[in-house]
Amino acid sequence: MKYCSACGARVSLKTPRDDNRQRYVCDACDRVHYQNPLIVVGCVAERDGKVLLCKRAIEPRYGYWTVPAGFMELGETVAGGAARETLEEALATVELGHLFAMVDVVDAGQVHLFFTGRLSGDYGVGEETLEVGLFAEDEIPWDEIAFQSGKFALQKYFEDRGADNGVHIHELRRSPS
Amino acid sequence: MKYCSACGARVSLKTPRDDNRQRYVCDACDRVHYQNPLIVVGCVAERDGKVLLCKRAIEPRYGYWTVPAGFMELGETVAGGAARETLEEALATVELGHLFAMVDVVDAGQVHLFFTGRLSGDYGVGEETLEVGLFAEDEIPWDEIAFQSGKFALQKYFEDRGADNGVHIHELRRSPS
Repeated sequence: MKYCSACGARVSLKTPRDDNRQRYVCDACDRVHYQNPLIVVGCVAERDGKVLLCKRAIEPRYGYWTVPAGFMELGETVAGGAARETLEEALATVELGHLFAMVDVVDAGQVHLFFTGRLSGDYGVGEETLEVGLFAEDEIPWDEIAFQSGKFALQKYFEDRGADNGVHIHELRRSPS
Repeated sequence: MKYCSACGARVSLKTPRDDNRQRYVCDACDRVHYQNPLIVVGCVAERDGKVLLCKRAIEPRYGYWTVPAGFMELGETVAGGAARETLEEALATVELGHLFAMVDVVDAGQVHLFFTGRLSGDYGVGEETLEVGLFAEDEIPWDEIAFQSGKFALQKYFEDRGADNGVHIHELRRSPS
């Protein structure tokens, strides 16, 4: 961030009065531009003991498998976002269950929230997807799962076997180099 | 948003290629400026059946009572943010329990996440706080609670009586006027 999105002047990193962190503050209009974590919403959608996975047609992790997930948008709920992503990526309508996994992806500034879901109709290949399939636990391509957060969600989903054991929480940080 | 934070040129609302929503896009460098929901993290901290509330010393809702809560920051986990807010607003150290409430504050573009907590030491009056107190369920000033999300969290907290019943999810939207 170099310029104020409100007035177009330069911004500087400084700690505003009554704050304890550095923020981007406009040199001209004094507006403070906060930067905060983003929410990614996803769904593990099941039918007959098998879960829906999508092979990604976009970077990052092109060609790897993922549960339907993406950035939550303004104007929707967390659950609504999880259902929307499932519709967009796998053309699938789900009856959402409960929130069962939360992953703090600290270094990326993201929180990933996963719902259970029941696949209620057909599915297909969305625009950001190469291929969609239903996988039993022993059929999942564990070494080709796109993101660690989705892998965690899938593992906990099968451990729970449909029971609501509250939210499994996991923290991901880059390994110290 | 009127100006690109990267290059300072004007932005326009348009739907980028491969997208299905209007975004602010820079007229000069084509950068897309996404706007997404923010996370508020809070904690219902208990000792001996009483929960910790803070009387707000800041707007909005100056003088009303709240559970410790605030915007999640980059570099922390959801749980870490809940503990930090409790420390900042009530000078209290908590042993965090489980995630038990999630409130979609749709029109504000916020998701509020609440943890249970056990107050492990003393507490005091933080900079954004006028007064701090411990309240049993029948002592809580229900009509003077600052935010509906915090009221929902307190209600569910006492309904659960410490049990982990998963996450209670609630959706708040402005009433149609």
